[in-house]
Amino acid sequence: MRSDPAFMTERTLGGIGATPLSAVGSVVWYRPDDAIDLPEPPASETVDPSAERERFEEARERAHDELETERERAAERVGSDEAAVFEAHSQFLDDPQIEDGVENGIEGGLPAEHAVREGFASGIEQFEGMEGRMAERADDLRDVRDRLVRLLTGAERLDLSALPDGSVVVAERLTPSDTAQLDPDSVAGFVTATGGRTSHAAIFARSLALPAVVGVGDELLEIEDGTTVVVDGEAGDVVVEPSEETRERAAETDRAEVRHEPVTTADGRGIEVAANVGQPVEVEGAIERGADGVGLYRTEFLFLDREDPPGEEEQYETYREALAAFPEGRVVVRTLDIGGDKPIPYLDLSEEENPFLGERGIRRSLGPDEELFETQLRALIRAAGETEGDLAIMFPLVATIEEFEAGRERVEEVISELESAGEPVERPEVGTMIETPATAFLAPDLAARADFLSVGTNDLTQYVMAADRGNERVADLHDPCQPPVVRALRQVVEATEGTDTWVGMCGEMAGDPALTELLVGLGFDELSMSAVTLPEVKARIESVDTSEAEGLAERVLDASTKDEVRELLPRDNEEPNQ
Amino acid sequence: MRSDPAFMTERTLGGIGATPLSAVGSVVWYRPDDAIDLPEPPASETVDPSAERERFEEARERAHDELETERERAAERVGSDEAAVFEAHSQFLDDPQIEDGVENGIEGGLPAEHAVREGFASGIEQFEGMEGRMAERADDLRDVRDRLVRLLTGAERLDLSALPDGSVVVAERLTPSDTAQLDPDSVAGFVTATGGRTSHAAIFARSLALPAVVGVGDELLEIEDGTTVVVDGEAGDVVVEPSEETRERAAETDRAEVRHEPVTTADGRGIEVAANVGQPVEVEGAIERGADGVGLYRTEFLFLDREDPPGEEEQYETYREALAAFPEGRVVVRTLDIGGDKPIPYLDLSEEENPFLGERGIRRSLGPDEELFETQLRALIRAAGETEGDLAIMFPLVATIEEFEAGRERVEEVISELESAGEPVERPEVGTMIETPATAFLAPDLAARADFLSVGTNDLTQYVMAADRGNERVADLHDPCQPPVVRALRQVVEATEGTDTWVGMCGEMAGDPALTELLVGLGFDELSMSAVTLPEVKARIESVDTSEAEGLAERVLDASTKDEVRELLPRDNEEPNQ
Repeated sequence: MRSDPAFMTERTLGGIGATPLSAVGSVVWYRPDDAIDLPEPPASETVDPSAERERFEEARERAHDELETERERAAERVGSDEAAVFEAHSQFLDDPQIEDGVENGIEGGLPAEHAVREGFASGIEQFEGMEGRMAERADDLRDVRDRLVRLLTGAERLDLSALPDGSVVVAERLTPSDTAQLDPDSVAGFVTATGGRTSHAAIFARSLALPAVVGVGDELLEIEDGTTVVVDGEAGDVVVEPSEETRERAAETDRAEVRHEPVTTADGRGIEVAANVGQPVEVEGAIERGADGVGLYRTEFLFLDREDPPGEEEQYETYREALAAFPEGRVVVRTLDIGGDKPIPYLDLSEEENPFLGERGIRRSLGPDEELFETQLRALIRAAGETEGDLAIMFPLVATIEEFEAGRERVEEVISELESAGEPVERPEVGTMIETPATAFLAPDLAARADFLSVGTNDLTQYVMAADRGNERVADLHDPCQPPVVRALRQVVEATEGTDTWVGMCGEMAGDPALTELLVGLGFDELSMSAVTLPEVKARIESVDTSEAEGLAERVLDASTKDEVRELLPRDNEEPNQ
Repeated sequence: MRSDPAFMTERTLGGIGATPLSAVGSVVWYRPDDAIDLPEPPASETVDPSAERERFEEARERAHDELETERERAAERVGSDEAAVFEAHSQFLDDPQIEDGVENGIEGGLPAEHAVREGFASGIEQFEGMEGRMAERADDLRDVRDRLVRLLTGAERLDLSALPDGSVVVAERLTPSDTAQLDPDSVAGFVTATGGRTSHAAIFARSLALPAVVGVGDELLEIEDGTTVVVDGEAGDVVVEPSEETRERAAETDRAEVRHEPVTTADGRGIEVAANVGQPVEVEGAIERGADGVGLYRTEFLFLDREDPPGEEEQYETYREALAAFPEGRVVVRTLDIGGDKPIPYLDLSEEENPFLGERGIRRSLGPDEELFETQLRALIRAAGETEGDLAIMFPLVATIEEFEAGRERVEEVISELESAGEPVERPEVGTMIETPATAFLAPDLAARADFLSVGTNDLTQYVMAADRGNERVADLHDPCQPPVVRALRQVVEATEGTDTWVGMCGEMAGDPALTELLVGLGFDELSMSAVTLPEVKARIESVDTSEAEGLAERVLDASTKDEVRELLPRDNEEPNQ
């Protein structure tokens, strides 16, 4: 029981922390368009259809303009992945079925805004009945509809790209198009009423190292504009009208000093600390938080949400930028990693009963997506020839030696072609993800052939434990501290000892500071993680003594259960980042 | 080019061999009811609805009687799994929606047989639009419809349960209800125009060690009743009007002498050779083909295709019979192994995106199906107390030590309860399947706790290679000769050396005679397989020298690719059974 009166007035709303970061700021409510209530339509005989038709055409034109501006901003800041959403919205604006629906409403005597509501209704209903990504199209249609209604009624909308510094954006939900507008320089953090740890907003927060709490629920709706709040991403709390003490604590949380130089353990062993990057916008955050390079550059963003595959030039430009950002570092680029669970219109992807055990990753690159693979390799190798940064090419979901060798052969072929054409070529490192259990058993054979191995712990854990990482019913099994996973890790590292092959980790495990000592003890040369915990992991490495860490690793390898492993891990005053 | 005139007349039709067995016999065509062509219906005013209503009722009653007879025969010979199909058919006969459809037809002036055709049409169409098991219901409805039409038109039907010895049953397709009627004592083999290796008919042939070729295509339809044919399951051929030479060759194919005693390698090491059993009817075949015991007794047949779970008494009776069949042997019973890919109405199974990585096997037995698990354990332990055969209880899909220990605790609890109640208890062996990669890494910990380990190579391969065993696009990866799989096997066996824990294999790999020497060399104590190749594997074991086999295993463990492994394996004149 505290008697500090300032403390007494603060209120805490529980939610889900998206990042383990905290911030203090001032609430700026973002109420998306769909909050607009239309009045009852006037009697139809008072409405002039030709005037309404004209109003609709004007609103549609302005919507196209807005979308184009937003698309450009998103393309510049987040990459073509998010930008593609706006193109899809533009297409919906001109959809003939929707157009007919609106026209029917206007002809029936409705004002344009009411006709728009009606015209979109059946399309939204259709998509709502579908599954997965198609169901999300219903949200897209709602976005387009509400944009038109706002323009027709003249309602105002908050410009998310121009908020005062220290703003905490509060919203019921944030769509991909919303988050693409947020400026991480002025926004202190955000809070949403809906969403979970894997929601788009949460992923966005992590990739930009923004303090954020999601899934707070309806209580959030009562907080007023301008209220001071602490966004405590570590506890998953929003503290409304925080006491002085609470504010200070919040300011302390992100206290790890950013180190912009490579670090070594206390006894001088160098460990490379790199960032995982899933969008071009994250490169800047990685540099700001002291990444030595990029340990996992995912390339899916280039291929998703569009009608045609990206060409060689578009890819070349994107890769060149990433490599140029790390003139003294290395960028490990993972070749396209997709499968039957993601609908990509220009690929022949068929539905599979167990997509995680299906045709994906390098299996497709050596099969139906052979041409796409070659184009990607050309773009990558050309980009490396033009920049100072070192390129490393990494293949996903390798399960056999034949696959790795076939992948490397393709790289060699592309190099020969480019050399014959007189282009400057810098030979990249070629390595493989270790994510199938097969590669853990093949580690000695791979270490003899590859320049590097990099463990993807999320997938490796999934396959070793036979537990889908997206299935809550088996979430308890999907834990990288399960002894068989740790033993598989050691088996992989051991295979590289005494070879020139370096071994890294680019799964979520690498970003958990509570596991840093263990990973050093297991013998990893490189750890790659999302930028958010990078400074803390660097700090941990500097305090680790290698031989003590090796002792810890040995004890962990002897443990039979996950609880025994957790017991052995160092415990801090602060909660480990789960 | 041969000049033997007898040889010139024989014709060979290619298909898919369901078993590597051959037979010579005489064609008996089985044309299911749906071949009945109805004449055009007479003018409606000439039809007396009340007479037709009566004819329909009579036919329905006779259909119920037939179904009851067939159900009893199937229950006796194949078990309650297949028998349940007939119950479902009986229910369709009384379905009110179908009844209404028939009544409408009769009222509209159709004769009963035409009204039946119409009455079933919309139901069949409905199920045809669905996926998976629901789609198969369309076939069930057709079966029921055609039975009624046959009874109404007085057409004759072949009685599959009373065929002359040496019959080769030829059909377009064989439904589960058809195969349940076949008497393996009189039927020499069967051939179907449709179906693949995993069709019901093919599985049935393997479980009963019946020569069979499926998927021959339309050419089959031209063969006439009474024609002599060779069913060559090894080549996947049907030879029509075979020459003397072809007949003799066919008779030679299944030449492996059945050994009814346990066998040893040439240098005297005993290897237990047991059978995999998925239906009670297979126990007899296992004994006939010389099984020392049962290495994998699947219990799913007791639980599938019914509305309520089997009670303790029903299970007790079933298990008691299996144990009694091997008074000097061991029966390894796998506890219920189901998950979200099988619809079982009385279990709370939700659809999962990757069912093979979901909540299944022991995960369910320790979770939502706890009661079912306890009932099964009670039935098993009581059955073992009443019979001479040794019971071993095996848990499916174990991935952690905690799961194994929790499973064993449940066994102990049930034993204590039974002992307190004064029932005779014989303590069973308790072991685990090795099918998750996790258990390969946990093998030392498991060997210290379990009485036995038994590798399920189908699932282990699937998870190690991250390749769904049912997905044709990754079929090449799903091969137990992939080096990582072989290394995982060795890791498991090694963990049992110097302990009292025995190690077996009950996946399809164990039944491939081309791999017998390798498996002996890897150090397996037991091999369990479908009865069909059991005599051949026993013969191979007798010719193996342990130290030579160990040399082979070492070379295979050094191989990096599947092709290198295959190169090292012994090659025979005869094709290995793939």
